[in-house]
Amino acid sequence: MLDVKTFHMDSFIPMPYEEALAPRLKLAQEKLQKGNGAGGEFTGWVHLPRDHDKEEYARIKAAAAKIRGNSGALVVIGIGGSYLGARGVVECLQSPNYNLKKKDGPNIYFVGNGLSSDAMGDVMDLVDGVDFSVNVISKSGTTTEPAVAFRFFRKLLEERYGREGARERIFATTDCRRGALKALADSEKWETFVVPDDIGGRYSVLTAVGLLPIAAAGVDIDGLMHGAMVMMERCAVSGYECPAWRYAAARYQLYRDGKSVEILGCFDPAFRMMAEWWKQLFGESEGKEDKGLFPASADFTADLHSMGQYIQQGKRLMFETVVRFGPSARQFSVAPDEGNGDGLNFLAGRSMDFIRDKAAEGTLLAHTEGGVPNLIVEAGERNAESLGQLIYFFEYACGLSGYLLDVNPFDQPGVEAYKQNMFALLGKPGYEDRRSELEAKLAR
Amino acid sequence: MLDVKTFHMDSFIPMPYEEALAPRLKLAQEKLQKGNGAGGEFTGWVHLPRDHDKEEYARIKAAAAKIRGNSGALVVIGIGGSYLGARGVVECLQSPNYNLKKKDGPNIYFVGNGLSSDAMGDVMDLVDGVDFSVNVISKSGTTTEPAVAFRFFRKLLEERYGREGARERIFATTDCRRGALKALADSEKWETFVVPDDIGGRYSVLTAVGLLPIAAAGVDIDGLMHGAMVMMERCAVSGYECPAWRYAAARYQLYRDGKSVEILGCFDPAFRMMAEWWKQLFGESEGKEDKGLFPASADFTADLHSMGQYIQQGKRLMFETVVRFGPSARQFSVAPDEGNGDGLNFLAGRSMDFIRDKAAEGTLLAHTEGGVPNLIVEAGERNAESLGQLIYFFEYACGLSGYLLDVNPFDQPGVEAYKQNMFALLGKPGYEDRRSELEAKLAR
Repeated sequence: MLDVKTFHMDSFIPMPYEEALAPRLKLAQEKLQKGNGAGGEFTGWVHLPRDHDKEEYARIKAAAAKIRGNSGALVVIGIGGSYLGARGVVECLQSPNYNLKKKDGPNIYFVGNGLSSDAMGDVMDLVDGVDFSVNVISKSGTTTEPAVAFRFFRKLLEERYGREGARERIFATTDCRRGALKALADSEKWETFVVPDDIGGRYSVLTAVGLLPIAAAGVDIDGLMHGAMVMMERCAVSGYECPAWRYAAARYQLYRDGKSVEILGCFDPAFRMMAEWWKQLFGESEGKEDKGLFPASADFTADLHSMGQYIQQGKRLMFETVVRFGPSARQFSVAPDEGNGDGLNFLAGRSMDFIRDKAAEGTLLAHTEGGVPNLIVEAGERNAESLGQLIYFFEYACGLSGYLLDVNPFDQPGVEAYKQNMFALLGKPGYEDRRSELEAKLAR
Repeated sequence: MLDVKTFHMDSFIPMPYEEALAPRLKLAQEKLQKGNGAGGEFTGWVHLPRDHDKEEYARIKAAAAKIRGNSGALVVIGIGGSYLGARGVVECLQSPNYNLKKKDGPNIYFVGNGLSSDAMGDVMDLVDGVDFSVNVISKSGTTTEPAVAFRFFRKLLEERYGREGARERIFATTDCRRGALKALADSEKWETFVVPDDIGGRYSVLTAVGLLPIAAAGVDIDGLMHGAMVMMERCAVSGYECPAWRYAAARYQLYRDGKSVEILGCFDPAFRMMAEWWKQLFGESEGKEDKGLFPASADFTADLHSMGQYIQQGKRLMFETVVRFGPSARQFSVAPDEGNGDGLNFLAGRSMDFIRDKAAEGTLLAHTEGGVPNLIVEAGERNAESLGQLIYFFEYACGLSGYLLDVNPFDQPGVEAYKQNMFALLGKPGYEDRRSELEAKLAR
């Protein structure tokens, strides 16, 4: 069962901060449960593990089975919240080396999350001679990056399988009624799944947005949803028994006391893309109105040999949140070596997990001593059930955190700025005035 | 030719800061060129592109050719500076999908950069049934992570090929005289390459540390070294014609004026691991004595849909340095679409590079307007020559930056802290007192 611990927090922030923050957390809690706070129209994720559409859920499983049956590759087209959650879960549970490994299911390639010609060309090569399907994920269907990529991969599919054949291989996750992709999907008779109206991109990993590619990769989505349900029930109860309260309270107090960077660390490299998901979740929810913790991530122990020096002795800007998983799926023990040239014989017979855990404890002590407060999320074994708990836990803590900070945790007004400029500079009709203005600024 | 530009910097920091900083940069420059500043005994990288050991360089190429001839995989064992540079260059020039692609050369697997049992197990599976070689990279041979991994992979090699056969497949990059790995390599008659005494890990990518795996991956290391040489000559001249001066001056002034986070962004996802290399370079060089910019990275446009909101409107902590490459290796143009359901027909006939570049300009304008100063590193075409220039440029700018900040840019005293704790907690002989002390702290 997921648990949150603080470590020697009394040496960093005034106690008892939990008591002081309880009334405000109670208000935040009510806003999330009732959906009547700022952005309340986007709190559909709060009861999603219980209330999700069961008919669609069955169709997700069927589509995943179909893809696994007829495809050596699934090309997933999406950006931001339509990308990070699925990739995070697949890498965390199946391995960052998933595509390289021998397995039953298809390779999963994520495209349309940038504008690199070479990156797209790579994936075109990788599906050459391989049967593949496409899952295009976009609420509107007009977001530039995925829309550009979808033009290429749709064409590839239709050239290879004909328009009829492609129909069996295109899965569109989009708005349930409106939008360019929905209209196109209906007219082309592609199977569609829903990006719910009441769930924003960064909270959507447990909808069809994340679940279809995750299930196609062979992950146990029942376990994921069950884990989320367990955490939903724990979070429905007000008070510090709820781990999301403990996390939200500690990080808010650290922020109030002057910390400006939160580093999410993990001693398992498979977690790397989940940390990217977390960065979007918290960065986009809190980072507005000149507020919010800057979210960064670290992959330990690798980054102890890169960012470690800064964390230990650089500017005292940051605290760390460390996600700890239980035993690895595979166990290896250090063998004794006759010569002991490397001096490691004191570890002979020890498992790598044992060494990893002592490294984690050593790091906790070193960083705390160096002035970096640590929060620890004990996440349990690295499996679908635990990850479902962890995802819901972070989402709920993020909602609470946004309300503590007095911002709307469910909007992202700043994301439009670069898009508007890009449209103008690309010569999109209707943006002519803005274009000249921007080009003048660039020329200055 | 690499160039550095600032954008509307006068709206952020007092001008003329370059003039004001010139005398201090001149002193920093002299320290680097003469090797007589703090940590001067570790400035061997300054003249490395000219002075490197030509005999060893030829052996690196020969070893790479041998590996390419007899191995389907090269397992590279190293952590920190013995890992990030090589991985960064291979991914940047050959693709992050290098291992998935059809090619002449071996797959390159990086291990020993963490303590994950599952990550190591993955690579053991991946070399199952594949002829492989090992390049173990460690100055001392006793750093825990690589030493543990090397025990496993050495055993695997010796079981498969016998001790004699393994001898042909183990390449040790280590100290030229001392240390556990050097002693072992000599007694086992493995071919060795040198981690020079006067070059620290994070400045070592253009020594055998980086060059052997990079060459084994089929990268043109002559181009890399030539690019570095060109930049070395540019940097030998004092003054703002040197791009490293311009970068060091602007970032230092931004730091002095209150910025605490530097985000290194790139619109090419192949750059991701180079950004990790950069984070070690700057974080470890500057992050000490309660000083230094916190180094973060972003992969655009993907991260405009995750970190973008925070960058646009969150706490005004940061500035951005954006590395821009020229044309992609492959060109794709958006095809017209009859229905134009996605509304992208205004882009028909446009190349993805064109769209990428307009996105970059739009982002530059949006972020600058949002209060985030931008520095731009025009890096040229993404090839070996340009990357060699870029690597040397960042190294030189980092040396200058450390001296501007009045720290030793070549030590890393804080990296020891977690190691010492870890040794004690693991029960390493000689650490008994410390162990009880630490265990008491953990129990509190």
